[in-house]
Amino acid sequence: MNKRMIFYIIGAILLIEAALLLAPAAVALVYAEKNGLVFLYVALGAALAGFGAMRLSRPRNRSIYAKEGLIVVALSWIVLSLVGALPFSLTGQIPDYLDAVFETVSGFTTTGASILREVESLDHCTLFWRCFTHWIGGMGILVFMMGILRLNGGQGIHLLRAESPGPAVAKMVPRMTDSSKILYAIYLVLTVLQFLLYLVGGMPVFEALCHAVATAGTGGFSVKNDSFASYSPYLQTVTTVFMGLFGVNFSIYFFLLRKKFDLVVKNTELRWYIILILASSAAIALNVMHMYGGFGEAFHHSSFSVLTVMSTTGFGTADFSRWPEFSRVLLVLLMCVGACAGSTGGGFKVSRIVILYRTIQSDVRKLLHPNAVKVARLDGKKIDDETIRSVSTYFILYALIMLISVILISLENFDASTTVTSVVAAFNNIGPGLGLVCPSGNYSMFSPLSKIVLCLDMLFGRLEIDPMLLLVIPVTWRKR
Amino acid sequence: MNKRMIFYIIGAILLIEAALLLAPAAVALVYAEKNGLVFLYVALGAALAGFGAMRLSRPRNRSIYAKEGLIVVALSWIVLSLVGALPFSLTGQIPDYLDAVFETVSGFTTTGASILREVESLDHCTLFWRCFTHWIGGMGILVFMMGILRLNGGQGIHLLRAESPGPAVAKMVPRMTDSSKILYAIYLVLTVLQFLLYLVGGMPVFEALCHAVATAGTGGFSVKNDSFASYSPYLQTVTTVFMGLFGVNFSIYFFLLRKKFDLVVKNTELRWYIILILASSAAIALNVMHMYGGFGEAFHHSSFSVLTVMSTTGFGTADFSRWPEFSRVLLVLLMCVGACAGSTGGGFKVSRIVILYRTIQSDVRKLLHPNAVKVARLDGKKIDDETIRSVSTYFILYALIMLISVILISLENFDASTTVTSVVAAFNNIGPGLGLVCPSGNYSMFSPLSKIVLCLDMLFGRLEIDPMLLLVIPVTWRKR
Repeated sequence: MNKRMIFYIIGAILLIEAALLLAPAAVALVYAEKNGLVFLYVALGAALAGFGAMRLSRPRNRSIYAKEGLIVVALSWIVLSLVGALPFSLTGQIPDYLDAVFETVSGFTTTGASILREVESLDHCTLFWRCFTHWIGGMGILVFMMGILRLNGGQGIHLLRAESPGPAVAKMVPRMTDSSKILYAIYLVLTVLQFLLYLVGGMPVFEALCHAVATAGTGGFSVKNDSFASYSPYLQTVTTVFMGLFGVNFSIYFFLLRKKFDLVVKNTELRWYIILILASSAAIALNVMHMYGGFGEAFHHSSFSVLTVMSTTGFGTADFSRWPEFSRVLLVLLMCVGACAGSTGGGFKVSRIVILYRTIQSDVRKLLHPNAVKVARLDGKKIDDETIRSVSTYFILYALIMLISVILISLENFDASTTVTSVVAAFNNIGPGLGLVCPSGNYSMFSPLSKIVLCLDMLFGRLEIDPMLLLVIPVTWRKR
Repeated sequence: MNKRMIFYIIGAILLIEAALLLAPAAVALVYAEKNGLVFLYVALGAALAGFGAMRLSRPRNRSIYAKEGLIVVALSWIVLSLVGALPFSLTGQIPDYLDAVFETVSGFTTTGASILREVESLDHCTLFWRCFTHWIGGMGILVFMMGILRLNGGQGIHLLRAESPGPAVAKMVPRMTDSSKILYAIYLVLTVLQFLLYLVGGMPVFEALCHAVATAGTGGFSVKNDSFASYSPYLQTVTTVFMGLFGVNFSIYFFLLRKKFDLVVKNTELRWYIILILASSAAIALNVMHMYGGFGEAFHHSSFSVLTVMSTTGFGTADFSRWPEFSRVLLVLLMCVGACAGSTGGGFKVSRIVILYRTIQSDVRKLLHPNAVKVARLDGKKIDDETIRSVSTYFILYALIMLISVILISLENFDASTTVTSVVAAFNNIGPGLGLVCPSGNYSMFSPLSKIVLCLDMLFGRLEIDPMLLLVIPVTWRKR
């Protein structure tokens, strides 16, 4: 294990975080809030620590391989969260440090699960930092780092692969640095577009800014206690559409820019994503129609809720925990489905579902015609056995981690809905679930142990298991 | 598709069912119950229909291949249930035919889920037939048939494979006919042993008979309204032990008979099964200790409940739906784990869990050491890729069928516990779940549609998906 290089990269991450902490400090300046100083001090501390780590480690060998890539990503995210939580505690806005860490992990992992009972009394700088962590975590801070830092011989792919969601990472352009820059450019443009559309609809500038960055990361922290319930239908619809857009694989936008429309049309994951959204929104609208003024209004709320859980954002216009069981069950399942690979959304990812479905299909065909050759296809190409195996293993691990977490959370002795959906919502990076953690509830009543379990779930979910798994299993640290 | 042969086998199954229906008729004779005549009539009808089907089909080609093997097993079980339900309806004991079919499917699949609010007012012959269906379904009627009927060139393996639980069928002896006879002999001896131990404990003969056959099939229908709650601790313990024994792979008993003790000791599945039972019983006992007079009494009830769900029997001494959330969650998960492959129990099967675990283990090792060769082992032997693939696919299908069923059952708008655990309990062939279907509840309140869904779940679960899947997907019936 190249420990020096791991320290070096974490140092770089701290330097970047220091720079990012200047943003809430600037917000504090605008609103003349004294707490802005705390952000400045933490930024300074992070910068010093980061600089120190980079100087002290001085790696002669700059190679990063798969194993180190995974470990460094897991460690970076943990360090990022532990440091990012400091301002919340030091300003006294979230006095308990574990609560602050929970809130920050929830922010960076774009979960949006909160331990706060209400948010409107918080400082502007605190509110902004909460939402801004979504934006940072959405695309990934190592992706960002690679836009700046050049690594040896294209080995950055191991970092990108470890941090990016989805079963396979497609390099858009031959050089990783360029890929990262393109991703962040698309991300920024879409965020700005949403911000402007909010302003058009009359949302105040600060709220528009916070909600735009929170949507972009598919996070879900809002600056309003009732999330999106009181905003106009126009503003809600803008949010619905952009949650959907940020749940799409970013390569689709790259294809659009390059005018490769055939690749967009032929994209199986995109097709499934759209069909799933429309079908579930319609089914739920029919199921809740009697609670609203007709199908139109019901569809307005059902599509918002479907997109908020599928994109794993977690904003709310309606408390879906009061909807009939059919709608609740469907929404919880969609939480697990999640968004497209290569988006800022979490969950199991639509493309993995497609791959599993195609695998089953080819296995059943084999049952019928034992001499036929098993071939599962995706986007016209054969899915190789390695991918099938890795997606199946991912599914097993995915289920296993949820089950273990549910057992641990069940020690709280809450009702079944709370126990199960708090894990589903944390692990898939949604935010709200059902029961006590429903859209109008929060996560404050959990014990410290459960909060740690849920923090780990959020990190396992956002980093797609492998990095965190390697970090926690003893065999990684055993000398050979 | 060799349709003539399929008809021929179903005819044979009907003849066997006719013979089996004479057992409740004999019980009726003992208790001088008029309803015994109905069993006689149905037996006569089944015999005529079976004889007719065998004569009319007269297959020249007696070959059975994998595909036909699966289809014929699925069809046999459906025909078996539809005919077996007739006496319940015709005697008026369960007037509604769909309810009678539900009860019979629940019987043959050894589920033990009942639509009856109370059972003590039923005829002896009806009560006996209910429990006896468990015994028939536990080992499998096609296995029984193969003990009598000789099929061409050892192709009976396709039938046995389709009906037997577990990822791989081990032929105990070279000839299938002999394997079937050995299995049934072990089954019979264990049942008689349990019956005798019940008599020793003072259980009335009729009750001992019914409960022994119901335990042997790991079914769970009782002749008492409160199941095992009022019996003595001795009788409860006998039941605990035998539920455990019938959940063990029957080859273990064959090894014991052959004095191959090393094969028993080295058996990984058996070791996991025992460890899981002891660990969960202890954990649950600690969790419910405060509700009973100390750890001892708590362990008595927790081990009964753990074995009732792991062996997928479904008897009850305590209503575990009133236990704390941790115990409930653990029991629901154990419902899904189920018993050992090659036992009469249902569920996912311990051996599949072991295979999945070993697969994950070798994949994680590969993450750490990318150049290492991936090898997952079981009982010292390499698990081949085909087995890993088929177990993974089984897991995906297993999850998929439960999810689709939960969505369909959610239309009833019951609470989440009822919705989810009714499917878990039916699909894994347990019987009781939580909520409205808890040990003191029943399945009578479901709509006809839900009852059909749950019947299909029971059949999918007992036959381990493939046979039922081929039966219901259109592609099987499409002309090539």
